[in-house]
Amino acid sequence: MAHISIIGTGNMGQAISSVVTRGGNTAELLGRADADKPVTGDIVVLAVPYPAIDQVLAERAEQLKGKIVVDITNPVNFETFDSLTVPADSSATAEIAGKLRGSRVLKAFNTTFAGTLAAGTVGPLTTTVLVAGDDADAKATLIDVIRAAGLQAIDAGALKRARELEALGFLQISLAANEKVSWTGGFGVVA
Amino acid sequence: MAHISIIGTGNMGQAISSVVTRGGNTAELLGRADADKPVTGDIVVLAVPYPAIDQVLAERAEQLKGKIVVDITNPVNFETFDSLTVPADSSATAEIAGKLRGSRVLKAFNTTFAGTLAAGTVGPLTTTVLVAGDDADAKATLIDVIRAAGLQAIDAGALKRARELEALGFLQISLAANEKVSWTGGFGVVA
Repeated sequence: MAHISIIGTGNMGQAISSVVTRGGNTAELLGRADADKPVTGDIVVLAVPYPAIDQVLAERAEQLKGKIVVDITNPVNFETFDSLTVPADSSATAEIAGKLRGSRVLKAFNTTFAGTLAAGTVGPLTTTVLVAGDDADAKATLIDVIRAAGLQAIDAGALKRARELEALGFLQISLAANEKVSWTGGFGVVA
Repeated sequence: MAHISIIGTGNMGQAISSVVTRGGNTAELLGRADADKPVTGDIVVLAVPYPAIDQVLAERAEQLKGKIVVDITNPVNFETFDSLTVPADSSATAEIAGKLRGSRVLKAFNTTFAGTLAAGTVGPLTTTVLVAGDDADAKATLIDVIRAAGLQAIDAGALKRARELEALGFLQISLAANEKVSWTGGFGVVA
């Protein structure tokens, strides 16, 4: 059984918590008031908006050593909705991995709206979580947790692919913000 | 009725031709042997691999003035399958638009495998073509052609969004090349 710490109690944190427990694994949800409470999970999901990541790392970088750290952020410029805020040839995940050298950092959950994680479906399709990272064992561990919940999970490749996952997440948010898709729809994967 | 010239007779050119005619519009397919034959369509689809684009523009830039030009390319580095060959902050479409100042350049069809265009479906979903570009009338004209064939089409935003569409196309090709999805599957859109 896996034990997962989720930092961030918003829609995404709650949806990911429901995925974890649906699969028979355990989750702890940590909010702002829990900043002094050390994480207890072997997997730690950073379910906060990208601008809040640096604060979390400042508080918890030491605790995250040796752990699987999952970045779910879409670093969208929410003033313009017209670009990402990370360098064009990088990704939020690459930036985070550069600051957490002792952790195994993965990208996941950034291409699935909270509603599709909670429901387990996107339209007629089973929700698919795309996972990228450089540590094969870490990816396999997270993929097991996701599949145990009845969702699909795909190893989308190396950490470098986080850039494309963030482009996809941004595109999906842009389509929803412009009412081209609903916040309970978006991209699904047909294997 | 719209008349569409398609430059390139490969899988994608043929699939797009079938979409056009299915909707009651007309298509001409132009191959390498037709380099001397001027395009006759109001819409011209560049259905050649990205490395062949410059040759087509060298032959036809004058003919393309005033026309809607549709770029479908995914400028993937096919030696490594690990990156795109255009600058990280640009796109194939932006590069092409920079060379065709007198044309209205759109991005479309790069996120749909040929099989899903021909079938009209991706798994249980109707195939959705994402269209980006800066000219609203040009986008509406192309979207009408796609919808007439029974496919879905979404205005994905300005030409700048071609960058995200190419990231999505690259990700999808990468997943198929690694046998995570089939070449008749991939990403579908749930509105």
